Amino acid sequence: MPGIRLRYALLALVFAIYYYIVLSYRDQFSDIKKCFSSIRAKIEDYDSSKKGQPKLASNSYLEADMLYRDRTQVGIENATMVMLVRNRELEGALSSMRSLEDRFNRQYKYPWVFLNDEPFTEEFIEQTMLMASSQTFYELIPSSDWNMPDFIDNERVEQNIANSTDVIYGFSKSYRNMCHFNSGYFYKQKRLLNYDWYFRVEPDVEYMCDFQYDPFTLLRTNNKIYGFVIAIHEYENTIPTLWPTVEKFMQTYPDLIHANNSLKFITTNESSLNHWVTPIQSSSDYNLCHFWSNFEIGNLNFFRGEAYNKYFDFLDRAGGFYYERWGDAPVHSIGLNLLADKNSIHHFEDIGYYHPPYLACPSSKDVIAAKRCVCRKRGNDGEVIDSAIDVNVFSCLSRWWRYGAGKRFLNEIDYTFNN
Amino acid sequence: MPGIRLRYALLALVFAIYYYIVLSYRDQFSDIKKCFSSIRAKIEDYDSSKKGQPKLASNSYLEADMLYRDRTQVGIENATMVMLVRNRELEGALSSMRSLEDRFNRQYKYPWVFLNDEPFTEEFIEQTMLMASSQTFYELIPSSDWNMPDFIDNERVEQNIANSTDVIYGFSKSYRNMCHFNSGYFYKQKRLLNYDWYFRVEPDVEYMCDFQYDPFTLLRTNNKIYGFVIAIHEYENTIPTLWPTVEKFMQTYPDLIHANNSLKFITTNESSLNHWVTPIQSSSDYNLCHFWSNFEIGNLNFFRGEAYNKYFDFLDRAGGFYYERWGDAPVHSIGLNLLADKNSIHHFEDIGYYHPPYLACPSSKDVIAAKRCVCRKRGNDGEVIDSAIDVNVFSCLSRWWRYGAGKRFLNEIDYTFNN
Repeated sequence: MPGIRLRYALLALVFAIYYYIVLSYRDQFSDIKKCFSSIRAKIEDYDSSKKGQPKLASNSYLEADMLYRDRTQVGIENATMVMLVRNRELEGALSSMRSLEDRFNRQYKYPWVFLNDEPFTEEFIEQTMLMASSQTFYELIPSSDWNMPDFIDNERVEQNIANSTDVIYGFSKSYRNMCHFNSGYFYKQKRLLNYDWYFRVEPDVEYMCDFQYDPFTLLRTNNKIYGFVIAIHEYENTIPTLWPTVEKFMQTYPDLIHANNSLKFITTNESSLNHWVTPIQSSSDYNLCHFWSNFEIGNLNFFRGEAYNKYFDFLDRAGGFYYERWGDAPVHSIGLNLLADKNSIHHFEDIGYYHPPYLACPSSKDVIAAKRCVCRKRGNDGEVIDSAIDVNVFSCLSRWWRYGAGKRFLNEIDYTFNN
Repeated sequence: MPGIRLRYALLALVFAIYYYIVLSYRDQFSDIKKCFSSIRAKIEDYDSSKKGQPKLASNSYLEADMLYRDRTQVGIENATMVMLVRNRELEGALSSMRSLEDRFNRQYKYPWVFLNDEPFTEEFIEQTMLMASSQTFYELIPSSDWNMPDFIDNERVEQNIANSTDVIYGFSKSYRNMCHFNSGYFYKQKRLLNYDWYFRVEPDVEYMCDFQYDPFTLLRTNNKIYGFVIAIHEYENTIPTLWPTVEKFMQTYPDLIHANNSLKFITTNESSLNHWVTPIQSSSDYNLCHFWSNFEIGNLNFFRGEAYNKYFDFLDRAGGFYYERWGDAPVHSIGLNLLADKNSIHHFEDIGYYHPPYLACPSSKDVIAAKRCVCRKRGNDGEVIDSAIDVNVFSCLSRWWRYGAGKRFLNEIDYTFNN
């Protein structure tokens, strides 16, 4: 029996050892678990922007997007900023954004919608989010909205591009896609269907004055559908057949032409309005005047409406967006001049704006001071630009005053200071 | 009796007419009074910035200074912005102000103190008030604080000015007054006696990044007395005898030299710190490094203290502010390097700053994005400036990192977003 006793003793010993080992491991495992969860908590709590935090390994200093920002919209309109922009234009996009946020949007926090025919990079998204005071949305344009329509003859396009060396941006098919998109597709983008109003922003522009009011509200409450800052002449060689096409459109759809239109703004030619200088020569009745559409504040429902879309489709079918290099500026403008009440178009004379090479600024010294305008830019050649294009010989503004909605004085806006 | 009756009747008639006339006049007068008071009320109530108001006769549109603005200080420090500026520099002053208000002060509303050796014009006062978010003060510098001291020999000054055609700003006596004032008198101005901290601002500069913290508080809570952004070399021909004078000062007042000074920052010369390029030649032991004083955030009590004033007086008596063209930048810097603890001097690596022709900007991409920096300027020649001076061959920053308070990483500041 001593053999059996020994065997039991050994078995007991084995069990004891087993339990010792198992229990030790258990404790160890629990320690490891504790340790992991403490590390996880440290990482989750980590905010590199807070004082005294250790520097995590990275090629930079700051995990900046952790910083909290209240992006709730303050402005009361159903409106958005919209920028068509490429990833490589990020720096210019940020510069434009900061200017508009400083001068206007930080007090209203309207969202930003970015449109691109390619997916936005992570860098683009991160940096524009940090620049915006508000929500941001990044939208990929469907290729059917961006590229040439099927009915366009690619060979004919290639031929025109080859012959367009003297046409500004004539060499670029992408530029034609862009003008085509801005003319007839931006307002159809799914994200923009949520909004009534848009504020078009381009990379590398600058706003010179504090807004001190909500331009969307101003347009809505005054029954306006569109606001511009600069009116100027188009290069005729970009649009040889645009006006004949517009004339055909007017014959085809006479009922769409607004009774109180501003056709005279784009068809008169007297020299007295431009310092008695002969207006830019045009081979058609179109005097080449248009609103410079890189700045636009407008109502999306006008563009989404039947009249404008019949107009756009008519132009689109004529092919000039691709067989020539029609710009979205004269296309938007002529559409507005034909189809809208001229009194529904507003000249924002008190919003300073710089898009190289042109500057617009209020003309009243008091307004410049009260709206904190800084109206001086150094141009590409190093020259200082500090006078507005408004009454320059090449501007169409005086023609708008004469034949459009007239020249108005201020005191139609309640300026506010809300630092 | 009929005669008497008639006479009474006539008298009654006269009285009746008299009363009629008098009472009419009275009524009329009361009407006129009413009318005047109504006009007065109209004028007093008149606010041209409000919608629908008639346009009063003026050569402009808007009596803008009527707009209300809450200028109550928000920041917790006893601090002020200070700008030495001439009336003719108004445009540049407004531009600098707007930049600093946008990037920092609109959230803190520290006052602005403007200093001038001539009275400020009404235009200057009105426009800077409209640009500031905070209180503004306009101070005339006493001529005894501005002009040459009596002990300076004017003839010798005129002679030096005539011989200074190759010295930058050497031709101008007013520039020497300015350097002399900035070196030893700005902090003695009566208005500045109210404050502990100052932020020096010059016309035509720009701040590139949102501050996202109060730099005065940062300095105070970290026991700093001075903050700079750019460190660079001085032109030696502006200061031929400055260093020998400083050496004499050190021999005369050895007790004033701080035990933990940063003398090595201004006396070392190894080329390894500047891309192995030979440092700028100097005929003295002074390597010409200094903090670029057009940007300064500092403690006024340091400058008002005994040590700095003994130092300034010693330099002043030597005459080099007038017999040469000593700048306030090397004078401030050397004073700080000698008399202050090197750890009390702070390099603001995260405040982007542009003073033509040099730009400073954070080097971390994440910081640039988080602080919304726009680090691109077009220089006088039209060239784009988008790289910081920091580690440029001519910068002294790497020398400050080696011999000053060291190179620090961030995470010592709580960044905030408070749009």
